[in-house]
Amino acid sequence: MRIRFITTGGTIDKIYFDALSAFEVGESVIEHILTEGLVDFEYDVVSLFQKDSLEIGDDDRQVLREFIAKDDATHYVITHGTDTMPETGQALDGLDGKTIVLTGALTPARFKTTDAVFNVGMAVATVQAAKPGVYIAMSGQVFEAGAVRKNRAENRFEPIDRN
Amino acid sequence: MRIRFITTGGTIDKIYFDALSAFEVGESVIEHILTEGLVDFEYDVVSLFQKDSLEIGDDDRQVLREFIAKDDATHYVITHGTDTMPETGQALDGLDGKTIVLTGALTPARFKTTDAVFNVGMAVATVQAAKPGVYIAMSGQVFEAGAVRKNRAENRFEPIDRN
Amino acid sequence: MRIRFITTGGTIDKIYFDALSAFEVGESVIEHILTEGLVDFEYDVVSLFQKDSLEIGDDDRQVLREFIAKDDATHYVITHGTDTMPETGQALDGLDGKTIVLTGALTPARFKTTDAVFNVGMAVATVQAAKPGVYIAMSGQVFEAGAVRKNRAENRFEPIDRN
Amino acid sequence: MRIRFITTGGTIDKIYFDALSAFEVGESVIEHILTEGLVDFEYDVVSLFQKDSLEIGDDDRQVLREFIAKDDATHYVITHGTDTMPETGQALDGLDGKTIVLTGALTPARFKTTDAVFNVGMAVATVQAAKPGVYIAMSGQVFEAGAVRKNRAENRFEPIDRN
Repeated sequence: MRIRFITTGGTIDKIYFDALSAFEVGESVIEHILTEGLVDFEYDVVSLFQKDSLEIGDDDRQVLREFIAKDDATHYVITHGTDTMPETGQALDGLDGKTIVLTGALTPARFKTTDAVFNVGMAVATVQAAKPGVYIAMSGQVFEAGAVRKNRAENRFEPIDRN
Repeated sequence: MRIRFITTGGTIDKIYFDALSAFEVGESVIEHILTEGLVDFEYDVVSLFQKDSLEIGDDDRQVLREFIAKDDATHYVITHGTDTMPETGQALDGLDGKTIVLTGALTPARFKTTDAVFNVGMAVATVQAAKPGVYIAMSGQVFEAGAVRKNRAENRFEPIDRN
Repeated sequence: MRIRFITTGGTIDKIYFDALSAFEVGESVIEHILTEGLVDFEYDVVSLFQKDSLEIGDDDRQVLREFIAKDDATHYVITHGTDTMPETGQALDGLDGKTIVLTGALTPARFKTTDAVFNVGMAVATVQAAKPGVYIAMSGQVFEAGAVRKNRAENRFEPIDRN
Repeated sequence: MRIRFITTGGTIDKIYFDALSAFEVGESVIEHILTEGLVDFEYDVVSLFQKDSLEIGDDDRQVLREFIAKDDATHYVITHGTDTMPETGQALDGLDGKTIVLTGALTPARFKTTDAVFNVGMAVATVQAAKPGVYIAMSGQVFEAGAVRKNRAENRFEPIDRN
């Protein structure tokens, strides 16, 4: 099996510049996480954007969707900012034969304590174990895209209550 | 969904005592990993053994199997030493209605660099995404128990070639 | 020997809130660093401010100076933001019988990679080994206060060239 | 100022091989620690031994002493196993014009939690701030060689009571 990782920016890749006292999206940490995870599968990493997810718009989502539609891979893990991850998940709906898992982090991977490594581990397992479709792996859970939202006040992902 | 974690020892939980210059299995790190992963599901942790997996014998496997058979939970993540993880996986075969994922670590979770967090992330996703059965989540891959072995020389898990 | 630690805020104690995408000064990490350093001396920690050092003004420096002047301890390590650490060092000049070492961090102690632990180690050694006076321990060096500046462009502390 | 680091092995540099379930002394971590400490001074690193300190004998100490005696540097930080660090410190006594600080770690630098970074920070400050002589920087304290012992039961360094 081969996994194609697509990075789009977000908190998972944020770095901190003291001079500015500001955060910016830096080089992706995905290869570092996979190396530390001692993974033994084939993969490559494509960097499409380096954006905070609040800056990712419908045009960007269309670029991402078309990239995957025309691409020859079948298994994707996409790292993405958390604020609009559910919207991007829905924008990728209906791509036949593609298994797509979005993940990211609530705290930067460059922190001592971060959910990034755990989340990428979840995404890598989900892309192998699930049938084609679009999923979000966050907060220790695997959600189908369209059935999940970010609860900003509680800083977690949760199922949409559809009663 | 509720996940029951069962710890049995192994490298994932190893600690180092300078006085002895030796490793021993210590308190489980599983709750620390789940807290860092910012998980938001119900779980509990049962400690059955604290053994190096080379010391886990058929009697222990029988204890583990009976514990799960009589237990009311349906989703299990078992942390286990790597050397005999495949044998334990096979010993748990055929428990109806139970989804069981074994994982562990090739380097202790208490190291700066460890595969433990990534692996537990994989196991947590697999136990949610897979149908009932027994799985091993190691080396970045999800294997069915019975179809995997540890390659000690290469220090990785790989599929059994069944030609 | 007894060391009194005084925390004033700064990058060393910064934490990151995803909701705000902003950094704020959080609880001091000094006790965590000393515990990890396996130190075996008596100490206490006094929190005077929780400020970015650009917000520390002459009034604050006067408060700090008077606190130390009236205090019964003799050995102080002060954690402080880096931007105005040299100014604060000079403001503490001439307190008889007091050995005072200022330190901090160029990257937050809560990062995976940080200079905070190394710097606090330097400060703890300096306060024991140096004669009374005011020192700054940063960039792997021990400077006398008044003979050091922060080079913001290079993000390091360096001696003032007094030719 | 220029510091010459001499590595001799010990827990600070220990690595763990799962296949053997044993620890061995690995490549020195000293350069990694100095890089993380954002130090800005000139230094080089000489690796003399890679031994557990229980294996360092009087012959080794003589080799170390002669190396320093004939060497043109004046400031040394020596990383060393903790069990016989006091003996090595005493064996280096009386080298005129040399400031020598021994340090090491009670837990390996490759652990998530380690005293190695703090201790090297202490040693780097001591070698700059102290007058010529031989010192041991451990347990958060700077000791003169000859006035310190390792308390194995308590896993700490402490002053020798010379009443």
